[in-house]
Amino acid sequence: MHSFTLINEIKLGKQTTLLIGRKPVLDSLKAGKNIDSVYMWNNLRGPYEVEVRKLCSEREIPLKKIPVERMPKHTNANTQGVVAYMSLVQYQKLDDLIPFWFENGINPIVLILDGITDVRNIGAIARSAEVFQASAIVVHLRKTAQLNEKAIKSSAGALLDVPVCRVTDLQAEIKKLEDYGFEVFGTSLQAEKFIYETDLKNPVGIVMGAEGEGINPDLERKMSQFVKIPQFGKIDSLNVSVACGVVLYEIQKQRKIDSNE
Amino acid sequence: MHSFTLINEIKLGKQTTLLIGRKPVLDSLKAGKNIDSVYMWNNLRGPYEVEVRKLCSEREIPLKKIPVERMPKHTNANTQGVVAYMSLVQYQKLDDLIPFWFENGINPIVLILDGITDVRNIGAIARSAEVFQASAIVVHLRKTAQLNEKAIKSSAGALLDVPVCRVTDLQAEIKKLEDYGFEVFGTSLQAEKFIYETDLKNPVGIVMGAEGEGINPDLERKMSQFVKIPQFGKIDSLNVSVACGVVLYEIQKQRKIDSNE
Repeated sequence: MHSFTLINEIKLGKQTTLLIGRKPVLDSLKAGKNIDSVYMWNNLRGPYEVEVRKLCSEREIPLKKIPVERMPKHTNANTQGVVAYMSLVQYQKLDDLIPFWFENGINPIVLILDGITDVRNIGAIARSAEVFQASAIVVHLRKTAQLNEKAIKSSAGALLDVPVCRVTDLQAEIKKLEDYGFEVFGTSLQAEKFIYETDLKNPVGIVMGAEGEGINPDLERKMSQFVKIPQFGKIDSLNVSVACGVVLYEIQKQRKIDSNE
Repeated sequence: MHSFTLINEIKLGKQTTLLIGRKPVLDSLKAGKNIDSVYMWNNLRGPYEVEVRKLCSEREIPLKKIPVERMPKHTNANTQGVVAYMSLVQYQKLDDLIPFWFENGINPIVLILDGITDVRNIGAIARSAEVFQASAIVVHLRKTAQLNEKAIKSSAGALLDVPVCRVTDLQAEIKKLEDYGFEVFGTSLQAEKFIYETDLKNPVGIVMGAEGEGINPDLERKMSQFVKIPQFGKIDSLNVSVACGVVLYEIQKQRKIDSNE
């Protein structure tokens, strides 16, 4: 009963599959399959390593070089020094999505998450994004919690519905949005304008930073427009998923009232 | 070094203390100390049992009768059949709070939580309540997650700042608010009016039900006013802590805009 497939590809749960060994990993990379991350022995050299590294780099898939003894193991199958985690979250590209939105008369809302590392927060944000019909979530490849089963569960499945773009350079994506005529706002407690004083009815991008830290200073310096949520009290800030929910609510409310007038 | 106090009262963590034995538990109940729950052998009889039962009932403290072998144990100290968990959350009464608010010119917002059983959600709600300056949170004694260290951590400490009322009859508390002139709204996906179409500038109570289930039908039937958050998408509803955040935001926004006009 132990077929080749069973040994080289095992289901870890409903949402995650592990690919084991050189050929399955390389074939899946070449076929453009939905790979979350690749783990490789850090002593692997030669043309195979070069090819995998190149494909991972092109497709912005994290390649993690690790000591032989730290290789993830879920069976006794021989890993040949390389395994890959596949994920049900199908990453998409803004370059594909933006033209699609405009061609289909969608007035897009893009949520850009800078350094949200808590799995449950990511899930709750995706859930709000689905409920308030955000068009896409853009996350940073390295500074984001893994979109694993727990995140999908917290999202009530929304992570499988709302398009997610996983990128290495948030600033480049913001530039892309602006080139297409989006207004992009950072959220900051230091902003001068409240979200409800700001017109959010046109195509919009919202950048949310991590709780406490806010948006990464390098990124923040390059942005020109900021909004804030009215906050009182002694506690520094709202939970980031609550803050995202409030911003998305305000956007949809403005658009809903506008369309009724 | 093992004094009487050390044996009869042990710190379980930063926020919780366990009282062990008949005298410490009874003394603390009589002194009106902040007790979360009392555990007692279910075979205990006589005047001590009657007195503790009466005090717990008066102060609305859960008294849990359990088999001898299920008694919580954190030391070898002899429990004499009774232990009590103390909590840092200092429960308050609407009867005390409402006159205080009005005497001090506070325009109150009361959040009534019906059956929120997830500790992290309770924490996140308390955090939003603090940030948006809700005046109190009313929770049901039995249908609410324990306000333990995890809840306090999730709340970023807000559970120690925002007044919490722990009650056995939510409907009676709603009636109390209405008698004082509050407008009390249930949140329901089936409501006709959106929160932003509803005047929330006067003293207000908001009843939030559990995700998916909504407000308990018995309670819902006795309420007359409902509001809803605009929701799209396929997923049934927002995360309850996000929904609370959105409602609190809308209330404070209406009041802020009003006070600037």
